[in-house]
Amino acid sequence: MHKIGTYTFTAEPFHCDFSGRMFLGHLGNQMLNAADFHSTDRGFGMKYLMTLKRSWVLSRLAIEMEEMPGQHEQYTIETWVESAMKFFTNRNFCVSDGKGRIYGYGRSVWAMIDTETRQPSDILSIDSGAINNWIVDDKPCPIEKGGRVKMGENAEFVRSIDVCYNDIDINGHVNSIKYIEHVLDLWDIAWYREHRLKRFEIAYVAEAHQGDTLSFYREPTAENEYCVRLMKAEAQTGNPTEVCRCKAVFS
Amino acid sequence: MHKIGTYTFTAEPFHCDFSGRMFLGHLGNQMLNAADFHSTDRGFGMKYLMTLKRSWVLSRLAIEMEEMPGQHEQYTIETWVESAMKFFTNRNFCVSDGKGRIYGYGRSVWAMIDTETRQPSDILSIDSGAINNWIVDDKPCPIEKGGRVKMGENAEFVRSIDVCYNDIDINGHVNSIKYIEHVLDLWDIAWYREHRLKRFEIAYVAEAHQGDTLSFYREPTAENEYCVRLMKAEAQTGNPTEVCRCKAVFS
Repeated sequence: MHKIGTYTFTAEPFHCDFSGRMFLGHLGNQMLNAADFHSTDRGFGMKYLMTLKRSWVLSRLAIEMEEMPGQHEQYTIETWVESAMKFFTNRNFCVSDGKGRIYGYGRSVWAMIDTETRQPSDILSIDSGAINNWIVDDKPCPIEKGGRVKMGENAEFVRSIDVCYNDIDINGHVNSIKYIEHVLDLWDIAWYREHRLKRFEIAYVAEAHQGDTLSFYREPTAENEYCVRLMKAEAQTGNPTEVCRCKAVFS
Repeated sequence: MHKIGTYTFTAEPFHCDFSGRMFLGHLGNQMLNAADFHSTDRGFGMKYLMTLKRSWVLSRLAIEMEEMPGQHEQYTIETWVESAMKFFTNRNFCVSDGKGRIYGYGRSVWAMIDTETRQPSDILSIDSGAINNWIVDDKPCPIEKGGRVKMGENAEFVRSIDVCYNDIDINGHVNSIKYIEHVLDLWDIAWYREHRLKRFEIAYVAEAHQGDTLSFYREPTAENEYCVRLMKAEAQTGNPTEVCRCKAVFS
């Protein structure tokens, strides 16, 4: 089996925005599906890990696109493991038309947790570090890693929303992609008519659940670049807690 | 080519709810995809209609499920045209595991519009009524048609939301499935833990756009049965207009 997994999808009409290009959230969802297919086929997927009481947890995701697939177009996601350490593994993505035209790239960082203690777990302890058999360290992924998103204290409160039924996935918390969609909803169509989303990165800090209210704080950090911090007021105590932090770069 | 189109999909993890069963919205989306594949392959799809300045418009959708496909399961959607009249056509769906186990059914009503005047257009005028070659009137679809959703004046205001970027599809208005998701978000996970959504029907009345605020009015109409009316305050005049009307039946 090849170390790089290659999966072909179609840009569905309702997964495309007003301009007929895929929503970034749906592309991110297919990246996560590709990661699931790739790891499952190679013996370290979620289903197998569940038998060991372990699970992958997405820690960071960065997507940088030159162009988004258009409605009805087929596109290909290649995914591979760039490196694996004790507590984190780096998985990359390349999105293309399958014929040599590159749409863009993604980088993700995953941790493994013990599903009983919710504590970090040693990735290399699984099957004597078998994931190391799948490392691809020579395929380029020419986009920056997601760095620490630096935000000052001047981020402006821009919106709050209640976490609802459709936000929650089988893990019982808000699904990783829904945060991306809610953050991108902070800009309106007039903005997207004039600006193309070039890069989006998100670092997940804490899980949000139904009953939480998510508050969005936004700060411009450069020309056409914004950072967004999501805070939740916990359902029980009302204490504010950071949920995730994002950076959106438009061109 | 067979009159009935058969398409196989997989229930993606992030398209499943907290219980590991598909969200109804995602199933509805795949029904609309199946309708698109079926009509395109048979010469009366959206792309072809665009060359005639015509378009299909979904007028009603009713889905009734005995069970929802679970995470990672393959499921099959069969779709066919039950009847075609001058201004409306009835298209049905059967959702199964592809091996004889039926999950449920769907019924939809479509109108055709002239994309320039936005007025109803004669379906049977397209290629001399060619759609009549595809009628299947002997395949059962044993669920009730979506009737007129009757609501009194006592519906209670329960929520309002702003229409955002991710709600809008290439037609420039809120996509049909997003209404379903927003309506189903009126119930929380505690409710869904105790109640299975058995039937959902929606009748589309007017289009909503970015800038509109959607207000949800809910009325219990029988045991475990609710009707929901969506109103918009138009961005320009503020006048309240009905957008769609839904019925949700739980068991």
